[in-house]
This record gives sequence, structure tokens and C-alpha cells, in this order.
Amino acid sequence: MNIRAIGFYIGHLLRIEGVLLIPALLIALFRQEHEPLKALGITILILIVLSMALLSLGQRGPLWKRRREAGKARPVEGIHAREGFVITALGWICLSLFGALPFYLSGMIPRFIDCWFETVSGFTTTGATILTQIEGLPLSLLYWRSFTHWIGGMGVLVFLLAIIPMSKGNGETFHLLRAESPGPSVGKLTPTMRHTARLLYAIYVALTLMMIGFLLAGGMPLFDSVTHAFATAGTGGFSIKNASIAAYDSRYLQTVVAVFMVLFGVNFNVFYLLICKRASQALRSEELRVYLGIIIASTVIIALNILPQFESLGEAFHHSFFQVASIMTTTGFSTVDFNLWPELSRMILIALIIIGACAGSTGGGIKVARLIILCKSLTSEMRHMLRPRTVKVICIDGKQLDSDVIRGVFAYLTAFIAVCLFSILCVSIENYDMETTVTSVLTCIGNVGPGLSVVGPMGNFSHFSVLSKLVLSADMLIGRLEIFPFILLFAPTTWKSRT
Amino acid sequence: MNIRAIGFYIGHLLRIEGVLLIPALLIALFRQEHEPLKALGITILILIVLSMALLSLGQRGPLWKRRREAGKARPVEGIHAREGFVITALGWICLSLFGALPFYLSGMIPRFIDCWFETVSGFTTTGATILTQIEGLPLSLLYWRSFTHWIGGMGVLVFLLAIIPMSKGNGETFHLLRAESPGPSVGKLTPTMRHTARLLYAIYVALTLMMIGFLLAGGMPLFDSVTHAFATAGTGGFSIKNASIAAYDSRYLQTVVAVFMVLFGVNFNVFYLLICKRASQALRSEELRVYLGIIIASTVIIALNILPQFESLGEAFHHSFFQVASIMTTTGFSTVDFNLWPELSRMILIALIIIGACAGSTGGGIKVARLIILCKSLTSEMRHMLRPRTVKVICIDGKQLDSDVIRGVFAYLTAFIAVCLFSILCVSIENYDMETTVTSVLTCIGNVGPGLSVVGPMGNFSHFSVLSKLVLSADMLIGRLEIFPFILLFAPTTWKSRT
Repeated sequence: MNIRAIGFYIGHLLRIEGVLLIPALLIALFRQEHEPLKALGITILILIVLSMALLSLGQRGPLWKRRREAGKARPVEGIHAREGFVITALGWICLSLFGALPFYLSGMIPRFIDCWFETVSGFTTTGATILTQIEGLPLSLLYWRSFTHWIGGMGVLVFLLAIIPMSKGNGETFHLLRAESPGPSVGKLTPTMRHTARLLYAIYVALTLMMIGFLLAGGMPLFDSVTHAFATAGTGGFSIKNASIAAYDSRYLQTVVAVFMVLFGVNFNVFYLLICKRASQALRSEELRVYLGIIIASTVIIALNILPQFESLGEAFHHSFFQVASIMTTTGFSTVDFNLWPELSRMILIALIIIGACAGSTGGGIKVARLIILCKSLTSEMRHMLRPRTVKVICIDGKQLDSDVIRGVFAYLTAFIAVCLFSILCVSIENYDMETTVTSVLTCIGNVGPGLSVVGPMGNFSHFSVLSKLVLSADMLIGRLEIFPFILLFAPTTWKSRT
Repeated sequence: MNIRAIGFYIGHLLRIEGVLLIPALLIALFRQEHEPLKALGITILILIVLSMALLSLGQRGPLWKRRREAGKARPVEGIHAREGFVITALGWICLSLFGALPFYLSGMIPRFIDCWFETVSGFTTTGATILTQIEGLPLSLLYWRSFTHWIGGMGVLVFLLAIIPMSKGNGETFHLLRAESPGPSVGKLTPTMRHTARLLYAIYVALTLMMIGFLLAGGMPLFDSVTHAFATAGTGGFSIKNASIAAYDSRYLQTVVAVFMVLFGVNFNVFYLLICKRASQALRSEELRVYLGIIIASTVIIALNILPQFESLGEAFHHSFFQVASIMTTTGFSTVDFNLWPELSRMILIALIIIGACAGSTGGGIKVARLIILCKSLTSEMRHMLRPRTVKVICIDGKQLDSDVIRGVFAYLTAFIAVCLFSILCVSIENYDMETTVTSVLTCIGNVGPGLSVVGPMGNFSHFSVLSKLVLSADMLIGRLEIFPFILLFAPTTWKSRT
């Protein structure tokens, strides 16, 4: 295990987190919020000291030679698959630990487990909250809370790769990007990883700015627009209002949010192809078609199912579309209390929680790409049962899938079920009803946010015990990091010296 | 598609069903139950006429030459995988259709959909009932109801293979045995399929007789002993009492039932090895160890969890063991209303519903063998992620698993989830709570019987709509036939002429 490299990367991550806290600090300064100001200041200080210590650990030679050595980028040599997993999992845990400090030090959230839960929920873009009175929080902390969504959406390591030239080859950073990026296989947009990472962030920033513009045009205040754009871009779902998007009683604003949720749930490869003016290729993407198909079908079925609860068909369609978009993209905003909807609609929403958004988007769940691969291998397997001499070939977008990718998807599904079952058993100790128990786990591992019953859109996670909060926050990390990095971090075999 | 062969096998199946109805007819005659007598007589008549028609269809040449031709066993030539699937699925559907007739013609269950549901539940050894007053049924029909469990437990085609010499080679009957036998791979006990089938039935009959003896020794009346032994042997769960096994307030009787449930959930290979005096090999079976391990672990956790509801630790353990054995072996008997147990215990029971018994037993669920294969492939896959150069090898009982078996297990899991999701959406139209909706589907596809809430051990399936009853009975058949035969029966590609 290359401890130096791990220290180097984690050090860089913490330094970036320190920098990312500065906007919140400025807001606290400007708004004269004393407690948050102090808390944010101390956190930044801790992060700077710690990152410097870790970075010097990652360097060879004495401290004063560090800068020169850094130019040669030595520490990233020797990053293999397992270092990639460990850096990713450990990095996210550290980010959440220190990201929780402002809430704790300012005293706004008294118990540290709640601060941890809220921050993990932020970074993993889940949006499950333990807050009962969101509007009571100071603006600087509300800003930081929403900003964690934006940071976590595209991934922090991707950000690191985008801004810091630290590797000579592609092979080593590939392990990092693979471990953090959602989906069965990392699409290489450009020949080098660094350019891919930069391009992803460019698209991300552009879409976020566009959304802020649309919200401002609809009359939403600047602060609200920015924070909601962050939460939408990361498909997170933290709102700065208790009533979520229902607080903005404007059909226009709600539709803008819904449409942008759908956009951020799309594989960013599609946007890249659109930018390169290869629109026909972009629109032929099987994943995009299935994704939009599921959204349309679910919207129609739910709209007809909930029709009796609304005044007009238009209103039923509006709320159905908003909720389907919110759940399928794993954002978790709500305009109505869908916990009161008929069972069919609620079950469709649970199915959407499990499926999730497209691979290579900021959304969670098992991803549409995996769903397609699962369905196609199942069909191929059944064809093989009938006619054993047929050759099994699975293609997506005309390209033949590697059998390793297929095995990986099956392994992912198995691990997903195993984690869900284990978590459900842990949470069931609380003795809530089955709806609460099951959907709280599914919504956390799917990075969605709301579930049903106690954890419905009008409920929250504050009632859970420390054990459940730990399990559920672990589920969020497991869901965001596609299961394996987090599990492998705790597997003894990862740490054995034999390579 | 070899229509002749299909007709031949279905014809034989219906003839056997006619014969198997005779004991019930004799009971009706002896007890002077007029309506059931008439109904059973008509059903047997229909079966005889229909089977003769189908058998002559399956033969070449004029009708009067049929017997001579049958000796040459021509129709079974040309049975490939797809004929195997079609014969199995269609055979089970026909059996259930005609097996439902006595209930319908006697007027004891007025609606045919209910008769169908009850008979499918019987043959698939599910034990889910639509009857609200079981004790109101005439004895002859109660006997037939329990006997369907015993017939379905080991499989009707296995029976056919055991008694009728109809194939020259092993290859062709293998497709039938494979399609009907539970588990990822058919264990070949003896070199020829016919001997394997006979041996399986011999063990089955011996165990059933042994159980009847033990029950009689405990003071249970003969009729009750026989019917409950049938229901236990098939891991079915139909009782002739409204209160199920709770009606026999004897610790001895309940324990006998519990122990025999566990025995019938064991892979019959283990009994074969014991008979051959290879006890050490039998006890080394990984599946057996995991199966017993899960039973013990679940019993202990549940006993501690439900302790406050019972007077003594012994009583808690007794009921915990009975319920764990009943659910894990997918029998479905109950001594108490476990729907009132704490959430943790209920969730463990749901996990057991999904896991089910051993492969090669009469139980349902996804089977312990598959669970082991899934866990081992997951571990191997994770090891491969850490160290990509390691070779992936999965062994069970010291034998290396074929990669086709592993792919088959993954395909099974995917299909299982797909069928569950689809069924849950269909049943959710009823607008019951999530517990009812989800557990009714899981308990039917797992061939268990009771679920939670409305379909709990004290509830039944009578309130469901026709659509739900059709979906749930399809789920039972899908679960019993290991998903694929039933699905492939309705796939257009199965019926295409190209081989």
C-alpha cells in the first residue's frame, strides 16, 4: 500500500476543501454572523494545517524542498487499483468529517452525529436531512450546506484531476476517476484524463450558471437561486426552505427546477457530443432514450393515478412530472407530499429510487446504463437457454460490451442487494414500520433523500438512533462511491502487503 | 417445436393426475360426501378422456396401434431445451387447471379464480390460501388440497420419469428434470436419470411415512397426521385447521413438525450420501452448513428480540425456531402471529423468505446454494478489483464451478428482481399498504405462503382482486419452476421454428 500517495492526495483534497469554505466565510463576514464566522475560520485553519502536514508526508526529502519535489509529481507514482479505492473512500470520509465542523463548532447542530449525517448527505448529494427547522440556520451555513451538493455532484477527485497536473500517464489517475465516477464504465471523452475532467467541470459550471439565470428570471431571490441551482446541479435536494420547492408557488420556477433536474440526470457524454455538434450521435444514445422513456411512462401513469387528488389534469401532470424527475434523478425536491399518493404511484417512485439516473451524470441509484446491461444480458441468457449454440453478444450503442463489464454489473447488483439487506436489518432495530425502514435505506443508498412514511417528503431523519444514522450515512457513501471503494476500505485484504 | 412430444408428456401428466385423484374419491365415497364425490368423479373422467386424446396425438399411426408404438417410445425423441421448458410450464398449468375442478364443481369454492389460486398454491407448495373457513371443507377436498403439496413438492415430471420408461438416453429427459428441479445445477445421484428420479421419490416417501409415525405417536389423529405430513414434506403449509399448527397445543407435535420442516429443506443429495454411508461427505456439504447456520443464527436473534412477548426464554426459543424453520424452508406453518413481532424479527423473516431452502430440496426461494455462489463470486470479483492479475476461481464442496453456472445464477437473480418489481407494481394497484403489497409478492414467488400485514399468518388472500390473484398465482408458478420455463413459455422466440 502506497501510504505516501494516499497522504498526498488526501492532503490536496483537504486543502481544496479549505478553499471551498471561503465563500461561506465571506458570507458570514458580510452578514456579521459571529458564531458561523468563528466556526468556519477555525475549520479552514485546521484544514490548512492538516493538509500541509499530509502533503509533506507525501513528499520525499526535507520539508523545505517540498515545492521543488512537487513539480516532479513523484507521489502519484505507484497508484494501483487498491490505492485508488482507498484514496477515494478515505478522501470522502475526511471531506465529510471536516465539512461537518462548521455546523458543530457554530453550535447550530448540537450533536456531532447529526452534523456528520447532514454533511455526508450533502457531499453524497443525497439530501436527507436531520434538520426540523431549516430556515433557522444562518445564511453562511445554508450556503455551505447547499454548496456541498455542488462539490459532491461532479466529484472532488475529478476536480483535483482537473486543476492539478500531478500525473504523467493516464493509467494512474484512471484508477481514481473510475473509483469516483458513477456508472459501469468510465467514458473517455478526450484522450487524457485531465482534459476529460476539465471538460466535465466546464459543462457542469455552464449548466449551473444557466439554471441560476432562469431562476432569477422567474423572480427567485439571488441567494435562493444560487443554492437551489447547487442542489439541482448535484442532484442533491437540500432546499433552504422547510417546504422545499413547494415554498415557491410558481409553475414557472417549479418547471425550471424539474427540467434542470432531468438535464443533470443525463450522462454528460451526451452534452459533450452536443457541444462537438454530433447531435445525431448524442440523441441515438440508448441510455438517454431509456432514461427519457422511463420518465415519460412514469409521469403518465402517476398523473392518471393521482388525478382524483388534483383539480385538473394539467396540475396532476405538473406534480407527477416534477416528482418523477426529482426521484429518478435522485435529487429529492418535492412540490407536494407524495407520501399521501396511492400505492401504485408510491411503488413506482420506489422503483425509480432504485433505478436512478444515467451513468456519468451527477445522479445516484444503480443507473440506467446498468439497467440496460442487466436486461440485455438476461435476454441473451434466455436466448442461450433455448438455443445453446447461439453466441452471447451484448451491444450498447452498437459497441460490443466486454464480459468483464457485464460481470462487474452483476457483482454490483449483488453487492447492492447485500448492503441493502444488511442495512435494513440494522435500521429495523428502531422498530419503525416497514415503509420507513426499507425506504430510508433505499433512499440513502440511492442518494435520493426522501422516502415514505416517517422519512417522507414532509418528514426527516432526526428521530433515528445513532446506530441508524451511522448505517444510513455509510449507505450514502456506499451509494455515491458505487459500493466497492467503501467496502474495500474496510476489507483486510486491501491492506495486505502482497501485490 | 415438437408438438407431438409435448402432447405425449402432457397426456401422461393428466393421466397421472387422474390416478392421484382416486384416494380423494375414495374418501368422498367412504364419508358419503355427495357433492365432492360427483365433482371428483367428473374431474377424473375429463382427465381420462383428455389424456387419451393427447396420448394418441403424441403417437404416430392409427389409434389401435398406439400401445405397440408406445413400447418403442418414439415421441420423446427430439426433446431439446425449449421443449423441456414448454412441457414443464404447460404441464404445471394444466395440472393446476384440472386440479382446481373438484373445488369448483363441488361448489365448495364458488369462484373459479379462487379455485385456481388455491390449487396453484397447493401444487407449487406455497400454501397461500383464499379460504377464510378451512375447517368447513369436506374431508375429501381437504385431503386433495394437502395432497397437491405432496405431489408438487418433488415434482410431477420427476414422478413421470421415475415410473415410466420412456427415453433411451439421458440427454432428453435431462432437459425435463433440469427444468423442474430446484437449484442452480441438477446433481446426478446415479448415472441414469430414471434411477435418480426413483431414488428421490424413495427418500421422499420414507421421510413422509416417518413423519406420519411421529405425529401419530404424539396423539394427532390419522387424517390430521397424513395431511400435515403431506404439507410438511412438500414444504407447502396448507393446514386443515384455521389456526394452522397453533391448533395443536402440544410442544411435542410442534417440534416434530419443525424438525421435519428443516429436514425437507435439506438437499436430498445429503440423504442419498447418508444412505450410502458416506456420512462425512454429507456433513461436509457447504450448503448444508450454511443452511443450518442461518437457521441457528436467525433463531437466536429472533428469540432474544421477541423475548419480552413470551413468558420464558424456552418458549421464545420454541416459537422462534418453529417460525424460522417454517419460513426458511418456505413451508409457511405458524404457531403464533409473527405479524405482531418487532420489526427486526419481521425483517429477518422476510430475508429468509427471499433466501429459501437448499437446492435439490422441496423448498422454494432463491436457494441457499445460489446465495453461496453469489457471495463467493462477489468476493472473487472484489479480490479481482484489488489485484487484477489474480485468477477468478469459485469452488463449492471442493469442486470448481463452471462459469456458465455462475452466469446462470446471476441471470436468475436479475430475473427474480424483475419479476418481483413488476408483480409489486401490479399488486400495488389494490392500494394496500407497502407491507401487504411487497410481502404478498415475495411470499408467493418464494412459495412460502404467509407474508405480513393483511397477508400475515392470521390473514389470507381472499380480499385481492382477480388481477392480483392472477399475478400472484403466476408468481407461485414462476417461483416453483425457477422462473425461466414459465417466462419462456410466453416468449415468442420459443415458438419460432428455427432451431
